[in-house]
Amino acid sequence: MALIVQKFGGSSLSDAESIKRVAKRIVETRRTGNEVIVVVSAMGDTTDELLDLAAEVTPIPAPRELDMLLTAGERISMALLAMAIKGMGEEALSFTGSQAGMITTAEHGSAKIVDVTPRRVREALDQGAIAIVAGFQGFNRGTGDITTLGRGGSDTTAVALAAALDAEVCEIYTDVDGVYTTDPRVVHLARKIDSVTSEEMLELAASGAKVLHLRAVEYARRHGVVLHVRSSFSNEQGTIVYDPKKGHPKGAQVEEPIITGIAFERNEAKVTVGGVPDVPGKAAQIFEIVAKTNANIDMIVQNVSEDNRTDISLTVQTKDGRKVIEALEAARETIGCTRLQYADQIAKLAVVGAGMRDASGVSAQLFRALFDAGINIEMISTSEIRISVVTRADVMEKAVQVLHTAFGLDADEEATVYAGTGR
Amino acid sequence: MALIVQKFGGSSLSDAESIKRVAKRIVETRRTGNEVIVVVSAMGDTTDELLDLAAEVTPIPAPRELDMLLTAGERISMALLAMAIKGMGEEALSFTGSQAGMITTAEHGSAKIVDVTPRRVREALDQGAIAIVAGFQGFNRGTGDITTLGRGGSDTTAVALAAALDAEVCEIYTDVDGVYTTDPRVVHLARKIDSVTSEEMLELAASGAKVLHLRAVEYARRHGVVLHVRSSFSNEQGTIVYDPKKGHPKGAQVEEPIITGIAFERNEAKVTVGGVPDVPGKAAQIFEIVAKTNANIDMIVQNVSEDNRTDISLTVQTKDGRKVIEALEAARETIGCTRLQYADQIAKLAVVGAGMRDASGVSAQLFRALFDAGINIEMISTSEIRISVVTRADVMEKAVQVLHTAFGLDADEEATVYAGTGR
Repeated sequence: MALIVQKFGGSSLSDAESIKRVAKRIVETRRTGNEVIVVVSAMGDTTDELLDLAAEVTPIPAPRELDMLLTAGERISMALLAMAIKGMGEEALSFTGSQAGMITTAEHGSAKIVDVTPRRVREALDQGAIAIVAGFQGFNRGTGDITTLGRGGSDTTAVALAAALDAEVCEIYTDVDGVYTTDPRVVHLARKIDSVTSEEMLELAASGAKVLHLRAVEYARRHGVVLHVRSSFSNEQGTIVYDPKKGHPKGAQVEEPIITGIAFERNEAKVTVGGVPDVPGKAAQIFEIVAKTNANIDMIVQNVSEDNRTDISLTVQTKDGRKVIEALEAARETIGCTRLQYADQIAKLAVVGAGMRDASGVSAQLFRALFDAGINIEMISTSEIRISVVTRADVMEKAVQVLHTAFGLDADEEATVYAGTGR
Repeated sequence: MALIVQKFGGSSLSDAESIKRVAKRIVETRRTGNEVIVVVSAMGDTTDELLDLAAEVTPIPAPRELDMLLTAGERISMALLAMAIKGMGEEALSFTGSQAGMITTAEHGSAKIVDVTPRRVREALDQGAIAIVAGFQGFNRGTGDITTLGRGGSDTTAVALAAALDAEVCEIYTDVDGVYTTDPRVVHLARKIDSVTSEEMLELAASGAKVLHLRAVEYARRHGVVLHVRSSFSNEQGTIVYDPKKGHPKGAQVEEPIITGIAFERNEAKVTVGGVPDVPGKAAQIFEIVAKTNANIDMIVQNVSEDNRTDISLTVQTKDGRKVIEALEAARETIGCTRLQYADQIAKLAVVGAGMRDASGVSAQLFRALFDAGINIEMISTSEIRISVVTRADVMEKAVQVLHTAFGLDADEEATVYAGTGR
């Protein structure tokens, strides 16, 4: 008997009808002889409605109370789903984050999981019940308070439970039918990827692929959890995310493609700190200043120095760009740099593939393709299995299309199953 | 520094505006130097909306899951209220039933409070915060599950916390401005009662007065909690419910009126089991049969026997009448009675007053007043401080009006403050 974790997001649970549809699917999984844990988000727009109510009541809601408020959302969806399943004749028990043993840090709105003690979930399974667990929420032991995990929280709850209870697979149900070589809205010949390694998925998610949250992918990779990203609207196989060291879960002999996919991020801003004295500790000083703005740094490039001075460039999300440049301006004399530059009409793309390790000439091929298309590269950064380039925002889509073709990723025909917005 | 418990129902918390209004009132109470615990129901129609959703999902929702679902309601109102209060500059912390230590039996939907361990509530007060507690909900230690207290649950939560933390008063905010001598929609000259003893309130609530739930009144009486029933729309004093043995909380020397008020219940049905053999154990046998139908018996009257046979009459709520008579029909031979009679167009009224104990002639005065008005009495039942009579349903209102005048309860002018529906 296999243990399967299934995670359903709010768009799969928008009303009573869709809850019944999801319940039916869960019951089918159970009746084929599996133990099933289901992790749910709040129904449809519930979270936004609760946030609106909070905003009507006070301009800056207290974080503890906001967590108390928002966690009502999953409570509603999980109870309804459990009663729908019971109505279909299978046992089901719903559990809040704290009942399911999701122990977190105390930071309201962005708590981290520190321990998972799913004793009650295990007992429910042992009694033959389907366990329905509230995603996104947890509990801090020190304060005794309810917490929420922030963005990507429900995916992370699902992966954490799969890891703690050694599930065979963690199925992430979504409104698209898997992970694509790139966004089909940009490249019409994008293909669904059957399998991807966890480190490739990590690079894709970190570079802007929206279908899985980076945090959940990281958690899955660290704990060896196999993910299956699939559509809640069909029974098609989606995309398997697995650890190649452990082998493919279906025993498939997958030859790693050189390039697996292309991710991109539209809203980037580039900050260049130019003419920085090339003395030890300068980079640390600059990044401490940036860190204080709470901006999330995306890419960092430093060139070799000339005349004992160097240029350091970094990219951040556009929304954070202004405060980063202001913080650096204020510290200009301390840093001792000769110039500060700012550009917010840029975008980033990343070509990812585990096969890149053993293949030579990938970067040459990439730069040639972009050059042939007349696309200028503003910054370059690489990892073992990824090449990221920054371009002007208005040519990024063209760059993705060109590279998708150049690396042989184009499908024979247009994707038709792609239904949603990629969350 | 006095400790005050304030309970606000759903009609006082219908939207963001009313939550802010209630928050303002709570902040004022706090700023006059009191410690404040607030108990809330779910906002406006939330509970009904959640019940509708459950009904859409499955015809008979699992009780455990229904409790999980419904408790989301208070979670929303308490979090919003806490953030509204914090937005006004006072500290506030919200607590679920289980966080507030409301330990109950395991019966979902109608759990009983077995212990109150409000450690976290006490700590919040000690830190200078206002504690906001979810009404209606609790926690069972054996199962670890969330429970709800059923009808009147939030009032009971408020009273239980007031008892456990020895509050000076438990204020029940409602949409009427207190307890009236009778329903002002039936008697326009009904008067607001300034003070009423807990045992009188118990009799009134048990006889159909809707403003306070019987269960909360019982709990308050048993634990000596002073109640103050008042309007959430005005600052007027409402009605104080107190234990005369402890004296009036404001030190008022209240002379107990002979008659305090008149309650009534419209939807009653009368069942008569006639010609029952007058042998020991017959009444027990009959009431065991009725008990199995889960009908709530309201009034029981047995006359002296003639020829070793007697008549036993009882009243139940109309909705339960049919199943009671059917159960008795089925057991007719076992009982050995000569006839069964059923009437569902009846109503009941109760005249209540602690002063009745020391006054003579009250029942004579009552029967005379009804006789003069041409109203026939179908059944009579009395306690030390109450006389209940059953009449035909269509003359009950007239009976209440006649008695209100006969016992000198009429006000000089019509009540104008009466706003709501008496819940």
